[in-house]
Amino acid sequence: MKIIDSSPKKDGFRMPGEFEPHAGCWMIWPERPDNWRLGAKPAQDAFVEVAKAISQFEPVTMCVSARQYDNALHLLSPDIRVVEMSNDDSWVRDCGPTFVINDKGVVRGVDWEFNAWGGLVDGLYFPWDQDDKVARKICGIEHKDVYRTPGFILEGGSIHSDGEGTIFTTEECLLSEGRNPHLSKAEIEDMLKEYLGAGKVIWLKRGIYNDETNGHVDNIMCVVKPGVIMLAWTEDKNDPQYDICVESLKILENETDFKGRKLEVVKLMLPKPVLITEEESGGVDSIEGTLPRMEGDRLSASYVNFYIANGGIVFPLLGDPNDTLAEDALKQAFPDRKIVGVPAREILLGGGNIHCITQQQPK
Amino acid sequence: MKIIDSSPKKDGFRMPGEFEPHAGCWMIWPERPDNWRLGAKPAQDAFVEVAKAISQFEPVTMCVSARQYDNALHLLSPDIRVVEMSNDDSWVRDCGPTFVINDKGVVRGVDWEFNAWGGLVDGLYFPWDQDDKVARKICGIEHKDVYRTPGFILEGGSIHSDGEGTIFTTEECLLSEGRNPHLSKAEIEDMLKEYLGAGKVIWLKRGIYNDETNGHVDNIMCVVKPGVIMLAWTEDKNDPQYDICVESLKILENETDFKGRKLEVVKLMLPKPVLITEEESGGVDSIEGTLPRMEGDRLSASYVNFYIANGGIVFPLLGDPNDTLAEDALKQAFPDRKIVGVPAREILLGGGNIHCITQQQPK
Repeated sequence: MKIIDSSPKKDGFRMPGEFEPHAGCWMIWPERPDNWRLGAKPAQDAFVEVAKAISQFEPVTMCVSARQYDNALHLLSPDIRVVEMSNDDSWVRDCGPTFVINDKGVVRGVDWEFNAWGGLVDGLYFPWDQDDKVARKICGIEHKDVYRTPGFILEGGSIHSDGEGTIFTTEECLLSEGRNPHLSKAEIEDMLKEYLGAGKVIWLKRGIYNDETNGHVDNIMCVVKPGVIMLAWTEDKNDPQYDICVESLKILENETDFKGRKLEVVKLMLPKPVLITEEESGGVDSIEGTLPRMEGDRLSASYVNFYIANGGIVFPLLGDPNDTLAEDALKQAFPDRKIVGVPAREILLGGGNIHCITQQQPK
Repeated sequence: MKIIDSSPKKDGFRMPGEFEPHAGCWMIWPERPDNWRLGAKPAQDAFVEVAKAISQFEPVTMCVSARQYDNALHLLSPDIRVVEMSNDDSWVRDCGPTFVINDKGVVRGVDWEFNAWGGLVDGLYFPWDQDDKVARKICGIEHKDVYRTPGFILEGGSIHSDGEGTIFTTEECLLSEGRNPHLSKAEIEDMLKEYLGAGKVIWLKRGIYNDETNGHVDNIMCVVKPGVIMLAWTEDKNDPQYDICVESLKILENETDFKGRKLEVVKLMLPKPVLITEEESGGVDSIEGTLPRMEGDRLSASYVNFYIANGGIVFPLLGDPNDTLAEDALKQAFPDRKIVGVPAREILLGGGNIHCITQQQPK
């Protein structure tokens, strides 16, 4: 593995869409008891189910700390590859590599600097040094060369690509004080274009209400295919989420992508607000420096936080009547893929969802 | 990766000879300052050179603790694959898997129980729990299923295979009090046959004089090819090593292998005794429970502790006039392979040599 002192754009690489073919999927095993209730045991069960669901479509590798190696090996089915990897938590979408490819099928990784969603300004835990090494370690195992972005903070969940030159992101996240306050919006846009091999960046203002990631784009929208966007939606005008949805829809409807296409927007209904229960809150260790999980806190639940696998969609079941609506909408949007729901409340309780705990490696 | 509740012999697997084709070579990065002098920096340089030498013949993967990951990545050339792996020290020959293959080219690993060369009886350090997980972690990365031998202690350095049904070992090691004192010699022999898919075990009495591994066979002899053995040798009758060599030669000359062949024995001259200097001893941390490295201690130096790679031999240079004799002997014994010497005193100071820090994975 080489650390390359160039950029994907200069070298003719681009970030493919998630809907393009994968070599496999990466995940990180949950364990920290100050984020996951009851010593992370319920979350581990949920991660096992997500891994199992994805592994019917493509190979899954689970990265596991030395402490949890035996336990993970025991709980996961044998077709899941288990590799040791130190980590600070389980969000491989955010700390893992963003893979880029070129026309010859060469795959490389972008190793963004990671600071736990805001560093010492409003990061979610401290320290985050092991997370920050995850991207290069994954690329190391796979013998993929790496672009590093020293001094530039980004998480994979804050970007979506249509694979044809357009990147989607949110101002709430990328212009946040805890990421790259030394850079202007134009400079950040240049970095995205340079390291994702893109030509245009479409900026939503905000992500899902109360999302602790400062509004990651992958929780409010995704790219179904070039030119088609799926947008989280609510009709409840009393919900603070409503204005965000309307605002996002306007932006998307008034934009064209890098190829000059008007965007088609498909709505995906949100569940009713999901709040942390007393029991759930009580199961989490209280540690100074880690975001607490308080009873009554609203979680940023959204069905759009699903994973696109080879021939499949793995989406979160939230125990809400809209679970069925989501399944139907996904069937319509992805008619050629098998739609698989996995109970995801335990993942949500940790601060994210299925898309956040997965990272595709393109073929 | 599955843990298989059967045995290689039952499933039609055998341990190939080291001279058969490899998929690659595994190593573990040295770091513990109570075994390697000066914070393991000189040893790291030596390991880098061994990895470089082998990588001209086959892919090399270096397993590195989280603490040392960045440093190893920096020091190793980019074609060496670096993967995170917790460990207690750097002897992958001994704690790594013994790979077995079948006629269809399927490769599996044998994950022997490991107790640091003698456990609480005369083991070399404590604890050894991370080392004991190395075999399955390597197999996990490679998606190879695993045979585990609960309650049976063995290190890879204590066995050699001719790939055609014959295993070589020493009584000094396998009958030692710190390994499997609950088993008879016949029962141990049965275990070797069962887990290495072999038909005959040839027992030398002892290994190299003062070898802290209780006389590993890989330090006194190796298999050049089926029917041909290379034996470490000295003509110095005042050296306690002399009797061991003569005794070993007699055993080998009077044995036939599993195929019924008489064994041809090629002698490989040992270097003069190698003693630890005051400076070398002074560079090692003193820790209760770890074998100390005292000034004047004799190291178990032997040229036979080399690695057979695809098309190459990587052997230890010991700064002795016999370095040249060794090179010449290896050229004669392996006329189709390139012979590469690597300075190995720093490896020897840690208690082993090039064969001990490498483990081949068959193709």
